[in-house]
Amino acid sequence: MAAVRTIRIEENVLADNDASAQAIRSMLTDAGTTMINVMSSPGSGKTTLLTALIRALQGEMRIRVMDVDIESALDAQRVADETGVEALQIHNGGLCHIDADMVARALAAYPQAVGDTDLLILENIGNLVCPAEFDTGAHKNVMILSVPEGDDKPLKYPLMFSVCDLVLINKIDTLSYFDFDMEAAKRRIKRLNPGAEILPVSARTGEGLDAVCDWVRRAVAQK
Amino acid sequence: MAAVRTIRIEENVLADNDASAQAIRSMLTDAGTTMINVMSSPGSGKTTLLTALIRALQGEMRIRVMDVDIESALDAQRVADETGVEALQIHNGGLCHIDADMVARALAAYPQAVGDTDLLILENIGNLVCPAEFDTGAHKNVMILSVPEGDDKPLKYPLMFSVCDLVLINKIDTLSYFDFDMEAAKRRIKRLNPGAEILPVSARTGEGLDAVCDWVRRAVAQK
Repeated sequence: MAAVRTIRIEENVLADNDASAQAIRSMLTDAGTTMINVMSSPGSGKTTLLTALIRALQGEMRIRVMDVDIESALDAQRVADETGVEALQIHNGGLCHIDADMVARALAAYPQAVGDTDLLILENIGNLVCPAEFDTGAHKNVMILSVPEGDDKPLKYPLMFSVCDLVLINKIDTLSYFDFDMEAAKRRIKRLNPGAEILPVSARTGEGLDAVCDWVRRAVAQK
Repeated sequence: MAAVRTIRIEENVLADNDASAQAIRSMLTDAGTTMINVMSSPGSGKTTLLTALIRALQGEMRIRVMDVDIESALDAQRVADETGVEALQIHNGGLCHIDADMVARALAAYPQAVGDTDLLILENIGNLVCPAEFDTGAHKNVMILSVPEGDDKPLKYPLMFSVCDLVLINKIDTLSYFDFDMEAAKRRIKRLNPGAEILPVSARTGEGLDAVCDWVRRAVAQK
């Protein structure tokens, strides 16, 4: 076995935004709105999956979406075009995450998302590192791991898997093509986060989508 | 078409690290070492592709690797085990990128990577946002886009595609499975970065690997 050495380089660039997040959460709870923060790598199928989920649920609850992107408005436009729900595109100026203060400013510009909405979906930027560090004020955190990314991702991005209430394993229609060990992935997630629910799903075929809808219904009912 | 509104939220969290990066680059050039910074999303097949590349080139040049990860040593160990080259695992304390000062500290702890090395590969953390902001001191920047991530990624992560000398489109063995338009991807990359080379490759089948080796040979010869 060849030599591997490890050195540790630390730096603290994170500000505490917990108080702002808690204030947002209380305001949304009082208004009867449940916010779900959805995180993933780029290309995990986040927008496609959210579109399928909104289509399945929009007959029974009022849904709005806030999409965070660096500069494009592709995701918000896609969600709006494909579902008819209102979507707010948030440009975060090239940052790698959204924090609670940014969410507060977005909500101030978008008052109908508070109170006139049962389910407010925050589609975070595609990134497995930074978004995990910032409480956005959401009631629930969801992350999407797609099969082509590999079953080792919980080992490499442990914080993201630790902060989630639900892990969706997406693109399960490609399981026969990729070397993805579902049991190993589940075991690695559970080791980091024993309370996390894990639901395999395919946005393309619809397999597993009913269970995801049920999870969202419970989250909305719990608020 | 449903309504989409856009608001802009900006914040400046970046420090200027260009002077440090330039000093690293000069030091490496003087020592005869070429550093290549490799960036991508999580799960793009970066480590697998680098391992294949090192195997193909290690008979003709001295190669060392520095792997940046949040806390695991999986990538460095895999590269070392599968190729026999020396690999340094850099833990960045949970940060989303590596900057020039961190590279300088890593090189100070790893002097054989300077001078006793022809090709020094910096395997950056899996992230399409933050690493693009920081000049690491590398001579060349390479990014890997994998087919399952989708051909729209240049539209959504434009800075990353703008700072690269070479874009590798990996996992082309899965093209028949995914809805990925190769010409659209190339056109979008070229619009952002007319000088970028674009090479399709499959680390799994080896297709396209020769052209990648040639590109690396030219980069090492140019220093």
